[in-house]
Amino acid sequence: MFTLVHTDPDTKARLGKLSTLHGEIETPCFMPVGTQATVKALSPRDLEDSGAAIILANAYHLLLRPGMDVIRKAGGLHNFMSWQKPILTDSGGYQIFSLALLRKISDEGVRFQSHIDGFKHFLTPESVVQIQRDLGSDIMMPLDECAHYPCSRDHAETAMRRTIDWARRSREAMRYQSDIPPAKRQLLFCIVQGATYEDLRKECAERLIEMDFDGFAIGGVSVGEPTHLRHSITAHTAQFLPPDKAHYLMGVGMPADILEAVENGMDMFDCVIPTRYGRNGTAFTSVGKITIRNAPYIEDFTPLDPNCDCYACKNFSRSYLRHLFNTEEILGLRLVSLHNIHFFISFMERVRTSIAESRFREFKNTFLAQYNNDGNEGYYADAD
Amino acid sequence: MFTLVHTDPDTKARLGKLSTLHGEIETPCFMPVGTQATVKALSPRDLEDSGAAIILANAYHLLLRPGMDVIRKAGGLHNFMSWQKPILTDSGGYQIFSLALLRKISDEGVRFQSHIDGFKHFLTPESVVQIQRDLGSDIMMPLDECAHYPCSRDHAETAMRRTIDWARRSREAMRYQSDIPPAKRQLLFCIVQGATYEDLRKECAERLIEMDFDGFAIGGVSVGEPTHLRHSITAHTAQFLPPDKAHYLMGVGMPADILEAVENGMDMFDCVIPTRYGRNGTAFTSVGKITIRNAPYIEDFTPLDPNCDCYACKNFSRSYLRHLFNTEEILGLRLVSLHNIHFFISFMERVRTSIAESRFREFKNTFLAQYNNDGNEGYYADAD
Repeated sequence: MFTLVHTDPDTKARLGKLSTLHGEIETPCFMPVGTQATVKALSPRDLEDSGAAIILANAYHLLLRPGMDVIRKAGGLHNFMSWQKPILTDSGGYQIFSLALLRKISDEGVRFQSHIDGFKHFLTPESVVQIQRDLGSDIMMPLDECAHYPCSRDHAETAMRRTIDWARRSREAMRYQSDIPPAKRQLLFCIVQGATYEDLRKECAERLIEMDFDGFAIGGVSVGEPTHLRHSITAHTAQFLPPDKAHYLMGVGMPADILEAVENGMDMFDCVIPTRYGRNGTAFTSVGKITIRNAPYIEDFTPLDPNCDCYACKNFSRSYLRHLFNTEEILGLRLVSLHNIHFFISFMERVRTSIAESRFREFKNTFLAQYNNDGNEGYYADAD
Repeated sequence: MFTLVHTDPDTKARLGKLSTLHGEIETPCFMPVGTQATVKALSPRDLEDSGAAIILANAYHLLLRPGMDVIRKAGGLHNFMSWQKPILTDSGGYQIFSLALLRKISDEGVRFQSHIDGFKHFLTPESVVQIQRDLGSDIMMPLDECAHYPCSRDHAETAMRRTIDWARRSREAMRYQSDIPPAKRQLLFCIVQGATYEDLRKECAERLIEMDFDGFAIGGVSVGEPTHLRHSITAHTAQFLPPDKAHYLMGVGMPADILEAVENGMDMFDCVIPTRYGRNGTAFTSVGKITIRNAPYIEDFTPLDPNCDCYACKNFSRSYLRHLFNTEEILGLRLVSLHNIHFFISFMERVRTSIAESRFREFKNTFLAQYNNDGNEGYYADAD
């Protein structure tokens, strides 16, 4: 399903294509996060206008609300939310371990109470595949155990071995597709865990490769670790991933993080940052982030980013956007969210062009020289 | 500036055209309310898609935030908010009397403190014209004194006489336009006050007619009075308005109120209801209002209104919209607001068609027979 189109000669940056039920995705790509069947504050039309080719939704959150009955009857998630391009669904492993109450994990699966209403649930790798089958996801993620940072070696190893076993069971649960031609199948990725322990990461990757998944994700990053560890563990793990499969770095990240990961051969990214920052009035621009509430923008009649052609930048000034945030008007957070998504999508387009033209490192250096205030910013890969 | 195109033979309903600096408006028309230089939760593109021909903004609110300096430097309100169709600006008289603090009124003007930051302001009829000149409004409203319900006859008469005097002073303050050709002028309407006292309403209308304004508004309705009084005072006042000028009923209202007023010769309407109800999840449909949060919609996969072709109805189900409200997602209130604005705009299109075809009363009866739950619903004409 994944075709490697070109590799940058000076780095491990790759240009690729991933075929899914709802269309083809060019990689490296960024997936806006639509946790609860909506990318916060944006409509599907806004997303299409931004050029988004795929979005991410979250099985855990959709299981709780509106529940699988509703989505099944709606004919799946695409119909329910009126988005006809590809959807990757996260299994909810991360959310179960960060949000759910009275969680009890065993080799069989995980028992927990909903953080919304206290209702009890029991999820297994098999039931999580079934949920994503009902959602109609183009790309499914298996149930995994995500260790947070910092994490003892013992806990990291236990979680890693359970993740491998659950990946195996998820693979088996996909047998319902065995009579379907490959081009019409939902894809199943696997998730490499192992926390910050290099040998565990290597072992996890090797064991998962033996089982043959449609794509390989690196999980357990952007869970609170410092930037240098995020970069080093990503680079270390990426080298063991099979070159003929898509490589997905979960929950990452800032533009500088994405460039670092692309340089090490990662292809897919998702992050809540563009919409979460957008709702707070922080805009990404070609010269770094700006906080639109600040006084310097009161009489600044230039667009958020003069180099951007999104609806927000073509029609509204920083002064107007500041006014909208100052008066708590919903249009403000929508426009900055829209701009930020557009920024990330067109940033990835420029990344792809630079790889196609075998000048990724030059692009990375030029971009970072102009855009220089990501700093050592911490963030979490949680659902938006 | 106002052309009477056709009058319904069986009622006083009128079809008209009003020319303004930013284009022509067909009447009867509904003006979405954009108090703070945005119609809440909607973008100018959303409004254009709904067919809105004119919106309303509020001088009082814009004076407080972002302040006139910013809007002057932005080149006026149209540029500031990126809306190039007509804008009517309310003077803020209503808001000064309902929101502002430590209000002190004299014949000269009104002294008050901002309800946002306590900053002191003094507004006169002349300064309010100057503000709307700077805003670049297509239609200005003069400063008036709006008496609330209930109101003693003495107070109503004092407020009415002050409103007449302030209208005269506003008219004189418009002299800066005397060298400008009529087609390039900002328009100034006047406001008929007089509370629920029929003789005061008549006297106020007659005195204002002597001064010759571009349009005549009925103010001091939808200030808390019961429906039957709103209808009777509107019908009573409307009969004194000059037939060759536009008639604007301020702050009204529900579809049933609008039909009643159109039948009595009113041409223009504004109300916060479509967006305010939209944010609460109440949708207007051809069979009445529905509350989308309610349980019957959990598995209702039909659109809000099967007879509507707005973006919300063409793409999303009641089930999905309910899910968005249930999970407090911003897209929900935006889609229901969008639908409600679309409902009011297309409702007015149908009103106009029925007048053009000399069958307004039949339309009114058919509409109300289907749409039957406005009831005796109270609402206020405040800014959204």
